[in-house]
Amino acid sequence: MAYPVISVDVMGGDHGPNVILDGIEKALAQRSDARFLLFGNEELVGPELARKPRVEAASTFKHCDMSVAMDAKPSIALRQGRKVSSMWQAIEAVKSGAAQACISAGNTGALMAMSKVMLRTLPGIERPAIVAVWPTVRGRSVVLDVGATIGGPASQYAQFAVMGAAFGRAIFNISNPTIGLLNIGVEDVKGTDSVREAAELLARSELNFTGFIEGDGIGRGDADVIVTDGFTGNIALKTAEGTARQIAEYLRQAMGGSVFSRLGYVFARSAFKNLRQRMDPNAANGGMFLGLNGIVVKSHGGADANGFASAVGVAIDVVDADISNTIAADIEKMQILLDDAWAQTLD
Amino acid sequence: MAYPVISVDVMGGDHGPNVILDGIEKALAQRSDARFLLFGNEELVGPELARKPRVEAASTFKHCDMSVAMDAKPSIALRQGRKVSSMWQAIEAVKSGAAQACISAGNTGALMAMSKVMLRTLPGIERPAIVAVWPTVRGRSVVLDVGATIGGPASQYAQFAVMGAAFGRAIFNISNPTIGLLNIGVEDVKGTDSVREAAELLARSELNFTGFIEGDGIGRGDADVIVTDGFTGNIALKTAEGTARQIAEYLRQAMGGSVFSRLGYVFARSAFKNLRQRMDPNAANGGMFLGLNGIVVKSHGGADANGFASAVGVAIDVVDADISNTIAADIEKMQILLDDAWAQTLD
Repeated sequence: MAYPVISVDVMGGDHGPNVILDGIEKALAQRSDARFLLFGNEELVGPELARKPRVEAASTFKHCDMSVAMDAKPSIALRQGRKVSSMWQAIEAVKSGAAQACISAGNTGALMAMSKVMLRTLPGIERPAIVAVWPTVRGRSVVLDVGATIGGPASQYAQFAVMGAAFGRAIFNISNPTIGLLNIGVEDVKGTDSVREAAELLARSELNFTGFIEGDGIGRGDADVIVTDGFTGNIALKTAEGTARQIAEYLRQAMGGSVFSRLGYVFARSAFKNLRQRMDPNAANGGMFLGLNGIVVKSHGGADANGFASAVGVAIDVVDADISNTIAADIEKMQILLDDAWAQTLD
Repeated sequence: MAYPVISVDVMGGDHGPNVILDGIEKALAQRSDARFLLFGNEELVGPELARKPRVEAASTFKHCDMSVAMDAKPSIALRQGRKVSSMWQAIEAVKSGAAQACISAGNTGALMAMSKVMLRTLPGIERPAIVAVWPTVRGRSVVLDVGATIGGPASQYAQFAVMGAAFGRAIFNISNPTIGLLNIGVEDVKGTDSVREAAELLARSELNFTGFIEGDGIGRGDADVIVTDGFTGNIALKTAEGTARQIAEYLRQAMGGSVFSRLGYVFARSAFKNLRQRMDPNAANGGMFLGLNGIVVKSHGGADANGFASAVGVAIDVVDADISNTIAADIEKMQILLDDAWAQTLD
């Protein structure tokens, strides 16, 4: 296939199918050759789709009897949603080869559970991670895990480092990305036992490990790849998004303050537009699940149409770059490190 | 004493004694009645102090033979710095009653260790926390712990909630502050076992617990008091600071872009100044140690003179509000919750 085929769980997300379809329409404006396999409830999606001829023409729709609730426990979602849910079928399209990547803005835990059950992890990888592409002062960095795991042993950080390096290599096109471990200080004595043990493992590896970095080092672009567990990474990511929104609100207030500042706004309008785009958390939307035999992209549940379009863009980029195979090959090369790290957990 | 007396470890911080003394000078411009007990190396501090007559006139200087290194392990700092270090003596001034609060920009772990050894924790509190006052869209929130602990059982979160509520009550002057637990989702099933158990404990308590909040809820001001462990809290705090700096840099670039945007800047200058102050992480500098029999304020190691002055301001506010006694009284009222939470860790 020369054109990308993306499967979409149209039922996922906080804002309903309409926003998802709007997002696809915006994505098509960027990449008119993309094709979509849409999975959802016909009664809800059908009329919306009929109103968007451009999306309809580029898509194949399949009715599914069930949608996974946003607040369902992963175990329940897996039991009740197996085969019949839109989420399951969207992932299954990747497994069968009908689609090259799957996107959902639905329940993260359920999406992870179904993806893992259907696509299975790559050899040497125990748990998949969600990777985010984080805008920095220097450009962009890869941060993982931002939500699939909670804590974890040193070997898990090593696996994330290997996956993150492979992902960074593929999307940034650099041969040996620098890797930092997120910690509460740069000194050796800081952090959890797992993080400190992980630093020792990584220092002995062939990876380009540069040591610990603190939370303020992410936005500064101190490393190409930043490794952490999903609890910490998720809170860091959402805190950064919250701070960006907060400052955007301050900016709005500051610019509405006086005649002079409003006049200033008029003069500086295009600079502000540029700034707002760089500050917009939606612009960086689309966390990919790394470590699976197949591509699954998670959009924010609360993403708007632009945010969902951005997630579609991530999926298409990843398909274009054939990242899945690159990562699998890179991980195979690092099997000695992974096996060594894992064996130490048995000591 | 009607005027506040603050003891200062002049040797702490990344930028040396000069920045600390500059900070004190700036603090004196706000509160000319404040008095300082300064502890440091005479050879280094003496000449600097002689150049700042206003600081010299408001201070008593005491030479100390030793300074705690910024990267010393807490255990080593405690062993080598006991009695002889500027940090130890600054804290001791609080214990003896010579000062009402102590400030240091030095080694956080060492400051915590020495403070705990000298001042001891309040009844029912096992571990002190570092509390930060976080600017939000709605005003300010209290976040704890931002760096004294790593993980911890549910009972520890309960202790932090009690301390945070008491601190919030004292500094925001509200009778029953809302309390949120930082988590990676708002659903009951999310997070670590400790966080979920803590939510159950807090829901049964008399505290005004409103449930889980995510990282982006902090800047939005979703709760008056946000409770987390020191690893997560530290990374959230520094990530927010890094994001603020990153956006300030974007703003600088956007404003320098074209003749129009530079002209806009001239018109909007005062609005920008206002914005930069609200975005400046230094403006919120000064994390207080909560849970001790005495007040210790930790300034950022990298704080500039304005940042250190802000930390001095926090110490003076806390002294003025007699927060220490309010917190001790509040904690005493919550002993049943604390005892209950602690007893559950024995099950």
